[in-house]
Parts: sequence; structure tokens; C-alpha cells
Amino acid sequence: MDIKPDIPTELVRQRIERLQKVMQSESMDAFILTQNIDIYYFSGSMQNGFLFIPCIGEATFYVRRSIQRAKLETPVQVAELGAFRQFGQTLRTDYPSLGREGAKLRIAADLDVLPAQIYLKLSELLSSARLCELVDGSAHIRKLRMIKAAWEIGRIESAARVVAEALEESLNELKEGISELAWMARVEYELRVRGHIGMMRLRGYNQEITTGMVISGAAAAVPTYFDGPAGGLGLGAASPQSVSRSTIHRDVPILIDIGCCIDGYVIDQTRTAVIGELPEALMRAYEVSESIIVAAESQMIPGAICTKIYEDALQQCAAAQLSDHFMGYGADQAKFLGHGIGLEIDEWPVLAKGFNMPLEEGMVIAVEPKFTFPGQGVVGIENSYLITEHGARALTFTKTGLIVLP
Amino acid sequence: MDIKPDIPTELVRQRIERLQKVMQSESMDAFILTQNIDIYYFSGSMQNGFLFIPCIGEATFYVRRSIQRAKLETPVQVAELGAFRQFGQTLRTDYPSLGREGAKLRIAADLDVLPAQIYLKLSELLSSARLCELVDGSAHIRKLRMIKAAWEIGRIESAARVVAEALEESLNELKEGISELAWMARVEYELRVRGHIGMMRLRGYNQEITTGMVISGAAAAVPTYFDGPAGGLGLGAASPQSVSRSTIHRDVPILIDIGCCIDGYVIDQTRTAVIGELPEALMRAYEVSESIIVAAESQMIPGAICTKIYEDALQQCAAAQLSDHFMGYGADQAKFLGHGIGLEIDEWPVLAKGFNMPLEEGMVIAVEPKFTFPGQGVVGIENSYLITEHGARALTFTKTGLIVLP
Repeated sequence: MDIKPDIPTELVRQRIERLQKVMQSESMDAFILTQNIDIYYFSGSMQNGFLFIPCIGEATFYVRRSIQRAKLETPVQVAELGAFRQFGQTLRTDYPSLGREGAKLRIAADLDVLPAQIYLKLSELLSSARLCELVDGSAHIRKLRMIKAAWEIGRIESAARVVAEALEESLNELKEGISELAWMARVEYELRVRGHIGMMRLRGYNQEITTGMVISGAAAAVPTYFDGPAGGLGLGAASPQSVSRSTIHRDVPILIDIGCCIDGYVIDQTRTAVIGELPEALMRAYEVSESIIVAAESQMIPGAICTKIYEDALQQCAAAQLSDHFMGYGADQAKFLGHGIGLEIDEWPVLAKGFNMPLEEGMVIAVEPKFTFPGQGVVGIENSYLITEHGARALTFTKTGLIVLP
Repeated sequence: MDIKPDIPTELVRQRIERLQKVMQSESMDAFILTQNIDIYYFSGSMQNGFLFIPCIGEATFYVRRSIQRAKLETPVQVAELGAFRQFGQTLRTDYPSLGREGAKLRIAADLDVLPAQIYLKLSELLSSARLCELVDGSAHIRKLRMIKAAWEIGRIESAARVVAEALEESLNELKEGISELAWMARVEYELRVRGHIGMMRLRGYNQEITTGMVISGAAAAVPTYFDGPAGGLGLGAASPQSVSRSTIHRDVPILIDIGCCIDGYVIDQTRTAVIGELPEALMRAYEVSESIIVAAESQMIPGAICTKIYEDALQQCAAAQLSDHFMGYGADQAKFLGHGIGLEIDEWPVLAKGFNMPLEEGMVIAVEPKFTFPGQGVVGIENSYLITEHGARALTFTKTGLIVLP
């Protein structure tokens, strides 16, 4: 089988060590990773099973399927998971120091994504094997994953290059009268042939995205469940966001918020296009979105506080008398300016109220100021940035600016 | 906003009534639906929130976002969710008969998909409002959803028509030397322009599928985590299944296991193609797969037991001395012959060991006998069937038979 390790062995080792340090400082005895993305991050493999990492000592990837493939993908030791009901006993046998009589242990897991049904079974198995109860360790995973290694930045840049090429290739077919769906299909074809895996992974429950959204005119301003600044008419109540069969017209904004996932890593970017010209109020709002992203870009240095950057953007909106239109309209406004990206599209940090953490080198953030005008459409821009010691470095390749088509 | 109700009001009413009957017979006092698909099924809307259905009386869809859109999509009454920490109190106020002093209540939820973190918060809110603890009601949901209404069959047929057209349109580009990825991109384009929503939803944790898999020769036989009969080299360890950049050659099987999601409903079908001719052993195995599907087709009448149909297929494999190759190879064999489809691709019933339930009218099942030959590839066939009073009716439009290309 032509299967090779993907993540460098040294990086897998470093990540496990970092998690072990967190466990030691948080008095956790072990971590069980259950979600495919978390397992991949800490092992290099996405096979089906549980990745067990003790606070000290060697990790084991307990695999249900495919063991053969997991062994070729990960430097971590692989064991057969076997019957799930025996898993507590298996851990006691393989990690005897965890089973000390009388000691109450804390084992963490990624409870933000693990379904309750499996959580309850796992809790029972661990407690009946006198191990412990499971605690929620998901915030620690999300914090570790915020800081990207150079190898990860390379992958995000590959994705950024693919999305820029796909947009470039498709723009000549963006014409009056084409449907949002038909043009999106074209963009997606260009993304896919370049290696887009077919989806952009999201951590949030019930959130779905495949390649973003292309929405035009009034349809773009229709609100939806998705926790983002734009909605879209969508393809019916069973897919109530993004593209619809609406036709793209002249002189209305076309929001092109697209991304892709290359070798596991996502990129997210938005450009606003128009066939003809934008109405004056929307043109003005578009310009404010550019001012906001420029201001954010200069603020995003190590040590800057996430919530402060968001609040400054709110102030700029207020000064421009656009507060009601920022990131959605009225009751349907999203309450953020930007979000981390990496293996998932909704990573940390978030430039939002309450996110009081400082920026650090290695974070990657998609900043997306947008303005919604009910009945008219959505305008805005989005670039993804790497935080470096010198400040924000744009990872987005597509040229900034309104795309004006004849 | 051009938003109209999608699911007929009468159907929404019937579904809620059926769930209420289940609750009454299972001594459950209420149900909280949390997953987007479950909420859509019982309300007609997929907005973000919780759908509360008491065992007697009127349901309420508590919506976080977009309330405005939810009201246009569902006949169920809509209320603002408000602060989540108040949700227990809200239910006590809105459903006072649920809060009787001293009465221990059982509220069910879809715990097979609800993340543990939300489950734990919800449990706490309900118990602190003296409501109850949450119990797992997911099996009941899955059982109700097994039986499709005529309206649903229409949607599945629409999806079946789209996949047949997309395959037909793309076959002339299936040539020696094209990569699996490039041809899949072509198929996906044809699916998308016809309204495929961009993903095929799965209920299983960590399972992912966008449009199925196109895998050829030895790459098809590479095992993976996915709980299906074929694997695929994939696009790296971060997408370890389905298409790869491998080139399609002459005289090897090309497994075309594709589907799509139209207006919420999925279809699943497989054809085997070859440019030139199949090696003799694989040709023979392909013929056995056709015999198995024909046998299953005649057995699938109301009252037939799922596990029996699977066991009969195993016997046919044994008689053909193909047991080791059936549905994967060796340790990586999948243990089923077919699966329910509907809003999700992994619905019930499953034609598998331990599934002792009888078939009923209205079930829709994808039957997919396949044979894996390491180093050579995978062959097989898959059709989707509706169980009617007269037996199985194929919903798949694509003609049966090996696709032989020059």
C-alpha cells in the first residue's frame, strides 16, 4: 500500500509533549482523543478509534479500523481496540500506573464534539474499571491547536493558492443571468481538481459548510442559522444557506465567500464582485469594510487583545453609521469580526466580545468585516492572516479590492 | 423574503403525533430534538435551536437564529430561545404541567448526535429547574424515520434521477490516464449544477462523505476507517478515503459509488466500470455481486428479517468461495449488506447481523454487495430499493450491469 506518514514525526512528538505539559499543570492523568480531527492532529492518522495519551509516558492509538493503515500513518504505537466494552479493562492493563487503588483519576476528552451516547458508555467503562470520570478537556485542545507550526502554515498557504487560482479561473464565467448555483458549481470544480477534499470541516454542532457561499443581491441578505455574517436563500429548507437557484443580476453585490481544504487545512476568503456598479450606500459600506480590515491588520500583533480588535471595529462601524448593518442585520447579527482557521474553519481565537486572550505568534485568523442591507445584499472582504513577531502577514493570495465586471 | 414552508404541514403534524405516541408508550414526558436533521424532520425548519415536543400538547421550536426565517419555514410555533442558561426555566413556564412538584420526569433527546458538552449543560439546566434528567431517545427517532412517506420517496427519486444523469453526462470523459480526482470533480460538477447540496449527511460520529467514491484498481482495495465495503487511497492522511490522484488504467475495475443530496434526501448507487476487460476472477466476483442483489431484491418483502437477508448473502459468498473478499478484505471487512437511506446516508434498517427487525412498507434500503481483491481492486453493485406491499421496488435509475468502455 502506498501509504506514508503525513505529519512529520517530530511534530507529532512535540504536540503530544505539549498536551502532556498541559495535563501536568491541570492535574489531569490522561487524555482520550475521540474526534477524527483531534486524533489526526496528535497522531498523524485519522483512522477510527481512540487516541490515549497519559500525562507521562507513551501514547497508544487504539484502532478499530483500519489497523493496517493506521500503522503506516502514525509514529504513535497502534493497538487493536477490540471489543469496546473491554476498553476500560484494556487501559488498566496497558497503563497499570493509572489504576492505583484508591487514587481518583481525571481523564479528559474532547467533550465538545463527542456524542453524549458514546460519552456515557465511555464514562461507564472507565468508572467500572475504577479509572475515573471523564472531564471536558476540549478547551485545552483548542488552545494548543491555535498556534500553528511552520509546516501547517505551508499547508494553509497551499489552500490559499488553490482558492485564488479557482476564483481566477472562474471569474470569466461570472456573467449576468447565470445562477448562483451554476457559478458556484464551476468554482467548486476548479477547487476540487486542485485537491480540495470536498468539505471544510467545522467543529460547531449542526454547522455545515462545503466550500463557502456565493450569494448575490437580496438573496445574500436573507438570514439563516449559520453563525456567520451572511446567510443566503440556499437550496430549500433542508439546505437553508449559501447558493440558491437565483439568477445573478447587474448592479448588485455578489459576495464570494469561499474556501477549500487542502491536505487537511482550510483557507477562508471573501471578495465582493459586481457586474456594473454598486449602489452608493453599498459602495460606501464596502469601503468601510476595507478600512476595518486594514485597521485590524495593523492591530494584530502579538499581545493585542482579541476583544479589543472587535470593539475597535464596532467603533468604526458606529462612526460610519453602519452599526445596524455590521455582520448581519438586526436580530440576526453575528457577534464577531474574525475567527481562527486551521484543520477546522471555526478554530480559536475569535475576534469577539469576551475573548480576552492576547494574540500569539503562530495564530492564523480570518478577518471578515461585512455589511448586510436587507433587500439589497451583503458587501465585505475577508483575508486570512498569520500572526508573526512583526505583526499580521496576509496568507490570502487574491488581490484586495472590489471586483468590477463589465 | 422568498421563503416558503417545505415539508407539507400535514406531514409535520403526523410526524409529531407519531413521536408523541411513542413517548406515551415509553413513558416519556417530552422530547428535545437538537440535531439539525432531526429538527428539520419534525418541524420543516433547520434553523438553530431546540425543538421541544411534549408527550401531549403543542410543540415549540425554541430558536436562536434565525427566528424570522424559522417562522416562515415551520408550522410549529416558534419562540425565541433567549439565554441558554434560562432554558430550563423557560420550559417550566411554557409547559407548567411538566413541572409538577415531586413528579420525576423523563425527557428524551437525540443523544447519539448531541455533543457531551451540550448534553451536560442541558442536563444541568433541566435538573436545576427540577425537570428531570435526559434519557437517550435516539433509537426511537431512527425507527420513526425508517418509514418514508410518499412525499419523501419523491425526493429520493429526484436524487436518484440526478445521480443517473450526472453519471451519464460524465462517462464519456472516463478515459485511460485521467486521475480518479479529475473524473470525480467532473461527476460532482454535474451533481452540483442539478441541485446537490454539496454533502451527503451522515449520522455516525467521525464519518464523512460528500458524493461517495470513485476508486480504481489497487487503490480501491486500500482499507480505511470508513464503515463501508471499499476504502480508497484518498488525498492523504487528512482525507484517507475515496478518490486519490492515481491514474485510471485499462483492465482494472473502476468502482463508481456515488450519490447526492437533493432537497435534503440522499441516494446511493454503485456501478463497476472497466476500460477494456476485467481479470477473470474479478469478472466472476462481479457476477456474484449481481446474483446477490437479485436474491436480496426478491427477499425484501414486508416481514422479511434484515439479518436473514445478510446471512443468505454470506452463504452465497461461501458457495462462490468469496467469503474472504466480501465487503472488504480480512480484518477490514464491513459487516453488512445494505443500509437505510433518507435524510442521512446511514439510516436504519441495516441488513446486518443482529438486526432482527422485520422489513416494513416504506423503508428505503441501499443494497451494496461488493468484493475486495487486495492489489487488484473492488467490484460490485448497489441499488436503492423501496419496500412496498408487493416487494422491493428499485429507486435507482441507472441501468444495471458492468459498464464496459472501449
